[in-house]
Amino acid sequence: MTLPPLSPASDAFMAQLAQTLPPEAFRPESDAYLVEPRRKWQGQGRVVAPHSVAQVAAVVRACAAAKVGIVPYAGGTGLVGGQVCPDGPVPLVLSVERLNEIKAVYANENVIVAGAGVILADLQEAAQSAGRLFPLSLASDGSARIGGLLGTNAGGINVLRWGNMRALCLGVEVVLPDGQIWQGMRRLRKDNTGYDLRDLFIGSEGTLGVITAATLRMVAEPAQICTAFFAVRSPAAALELLALAQDMVGDGVSAFELIHRQGFDFITEAGLPGQMPFSPLPAWAVLIELGLGRGSDPAETLAELFETGMRQGLCDDGVIASSQAQRAAFWNLRETIPEGNRRIGAIASHDISLPLSHIAEFIDKAPELIAPLGPLRINCFGHLGDGNLHYNMFPPQGESRENYAGIAPQLSDIVHQLAHDLGGSISAEHGIGRLKRDDLARFSDPAKMAMMRAVKQALDPDWIMNPGAVFARD
Amino acid sequence: MTLPPLSPASDAFMAQLAQTLPPEAFRPESDAYLVEPRRKWQGQGRVVAPHSVAQVAAVVRACAAAKVGIVPYAGGTGLVGGQVCPDGPVPLVLSVERLNEIKAVYANENVIVAGAGVILADLQEAAQSAGRLFPLSLASDGSARIGGLLGTNAGGINVLRWGNMRALCLGVEVVLPDGQIWQGMRRLRKDNTGYDLRDLFIGSEGTLGVITAATLRMVAEPAQICTAFFAVRSPAAALELLALAQDMVGDGVSAFELIHRQGFDFITEAGLPGQMPFSPLPAWAVLIELGLGRGSDPAETLAELFETGMRQGLCDDGVIASSQAQRAAFWNLRETIPEGNRRIGAIASHDISLPLSHIAEFIDKAPELIAPLGPLRINCFGHLGDGNLHYNMFPPQGESRENYAGIAPQLSDIVHQLAHDLGGSISAEHGIGRLKRDDLARFSDPAKMAMMRAVKQALDPDWIMNPGAVFARD
Repeated sequence: MTLPPLSPASDAFMAQLAQTLPPEAFRPESDAYLVEPRRKWQGQGRVVAPHSVAQVAAVVRACAAAKVGIVPYAGGTGLVGGQVCPDGPVPLVLSVERLNEIKAVYANENVIVAGAGVILADLQEAAQSAGRLFPLSLASDGSARIGGLLGTNAGGINVLRWGNMRALCLGVEVVLPDGQIWQGMRRLRKDNTGYDLRDLFIGSEGTLGVITAATLRMVAEPAQICTAFFAVRSPAAALELLALAQDMVGDGVSAFELIHRQGFDFITEAGLPGQMPFSPLPAWAVLIELGLGRGSDPAETLAELFETGMRQGLCDDGVIASSQAQRAAFWNLRETIPEGNRRIGAIASHDISLPLSHIAEFIDKAPELIAPLGPLRINCFGHLGDGNLHYNMFPPQGESRENYAGIAPQLSDIVHQLAHDLGGSISAEHGIGRLKRDDLARFSDPAKMAMMRAVKQALDPDWIMNPGAVFARD
Repeated sequence: MTLPPLSPASDAFMAQLAQTLPPEAFRPESDAYLVEPRRKWQGQGRVVAPHSVAQVAAVVRACAAAKVGIVPYAGGTGLVGGQVCPDGPVPLVLSVERLNEIKAVYANENVIVAGAGVILADLQEAAQSAGRLFPLSLASDGSARIGGLLGTNAGGINVLRWGNMRALCLGVEVVLPDGQIWQGMRRLRKDNTGYDLRDLFIGSEGTLGVITAATLRMVAEPAQICTAFFAVRSPAAALELLALAQDMVGDGVSAFELIHRQGFDFITEAGLPGQMPFSPLPAWAVLIELGLGRGSDPAETLAELFETGMRQGLCDDGVIASSQAQRAAFWNLRETIPEGNRRIGAIASHDISLPLSHIAEFIDKAPELIAPLGPLRINCFGHLGDGNLHYNMFPPQGESRENYAGIAPQLSDIVHQLAHDLGGSISAEHGIGRLKRDDLARFSDPAKMAMMRAVKQALDPDWIMNPGAVFARD
């Protein structure tokens, strides 16, 4: 299938837009909009940042009429190149950064309403000011914006308990590819009136429309929170420990992160700040957070969990945070791991998920398959309770990753094929973007790909939305 | 838009099917398949019950070739007529009742895999045998089947804590309208590989394909469970009590049901068994269930909640279950309310949801708007924590509902218009089916209806799936 040709966002087109949009809506074509965090691609595009949904609709209508491609742009923190368009006719980059209003907080409903440009940390803070918690949290809290988090169905450290962005979203406002506005901003927990279009837009990576605002869930902040690092015998032991914890307090387990020693070592090697929880460091550790109700004592529960784990040979060292400051330090250390990875420089990075039963098998097998390609260092960490591993390969200490750039595709082949063979996913929480487009087509059921193309064709018949993301454009 | 014409499931067509399907797959055209619980419609159709997904695919391929409409049929408990086709060319009713295998239980993953024909109570029991909980529960536990529960995105009493069927489903197997099988049966908590087609099928009421199997979530059964009836001052007081409970134990509140005295009175009037929790009965009561972790004492928490509620003037009587038997009796009483309604005979029934802030307003206003139409009895009950009210009207005692049949449309107009005006939904958990088709078109954003039709057209271009459900066929 050949897709309809697009026109570039030419000077003439931009001049036409200038008749609709005020001057402050135009942005320079800077790296801020055209380069993604891992610098895999150099994007191209003219940039606008509308101030209202009406302005977004006007921009999209103009693009639809002129058949100019649109790249929706939020915080720019995506890791699969969904936000940059490196080839084809120059698109219009549509930044939602100025739709950054927190429109309403309904504390008694546990609902918060925000524009797509709101930064996650600001949303978290607004929820906290209302005595509530917006539970989604990830390393880029301070720069990721709601529109991008919804567009990619972002995950992070609290999915185990409260779900990903999809689970936290009650309604969306979307500018459709023809410039119509869909008002889907309900504040309802239950609404079975027709097809679930909301969840179709969430995770569609800007290929079906531009999300401009959303109504989001908040939750009651657990009355008693406690966090601990446990040194575990193995990933399998970590899973048994998780099951023990859930037997004890059910969904009171808010987070359960697996960390390989390599992640800690990279922090030190990169000279990043961070107090290590153990000395010597174990091969595997887990970071556990419990959030329980009033009258509970999560520190005591963690101590009991540790004792049971010790008896069963699952863990052999542990530190339970004894203050808010120590709890924050534990989480800072966890969230410094991605920065450590960036500083060291990965040859290839992966974001896979697996059925929980197959995680230990994956972690055993993958290094064997990778070994023939060189003496690489592997950093395997992630959201164990979700079956989500970040599985990244690095050069030996002192060597440059450029020397290994050639084997990156082979490494990804190995990781994705093994994950697929074990019933897993090649993208757990980052999405497809441009990085995993070919692997999506390769590993997906053909019936699924055909349905996706049919839905894309139905909602965006000229294929102007985020050209080249999710689907190859050829 | 005129939809393509369909052919009837003629004798010749059935004879052709008999060459593909064994004799035991054919079912009589009995009321069991052609009448829905409230007897609003007399359906029509020839009936088959395939034994495997391959047989389902063969049936659908035959229908697609002959342009025969297909009505997917599961437990037949739907309340909006999604499972019966009263007019147009005679369709094929495709019952999933024989796809009733529990295929696998992965206790350590909290995952259970079931065919679409499995009855909810059997699924709950299989989960319990594995030491887990399948939390979805509703009045028709004993007859509703997984395929229908997914097709309608069913809700019930535990949505507050664990979500509806959509939230509990990890993957689906679907026979598409052309007879292709989509294998989407992953056991993953996170999977961002392309559009969320799973959630598009869930809640599509059989209009996009036939769900034949699903992988579903289980949860750890709370270690300590306790249930109580509180007599509350008003619906607004009930909401304040819910907020108090959530402040105390967060998502430890598993259920929070609002019950009007009328519901209890109907049970007595209909001669159904049931021990009333209060004497005299209060105008409003709530049924609260807490499910907490080990080391917690939910009975003590409920007692504390009651004392705080008393002090704040929210509640003035209460019964805390002191045994499993009493807990079961409380729930039996709650689940007898729909049966009481059926015995009395509603003039009009509604399943609406509202933003929590507007519930008290709705409950105040609706009777005022209804009063001019007659001295009706109103039974308002529902899943308060979800903002979901079942709002049903009955004739005065001793009168027949037939005398009031003429005003049913006006009653529904009033209820749906008011819910809509307050930002609510005309269908919280029952779906659209044939009952609410016109109201869906009337109260929906036109952009939403246009997208829904575009998606339907894209996935079912001959519109053979469940003709007349969700969309009018004219």
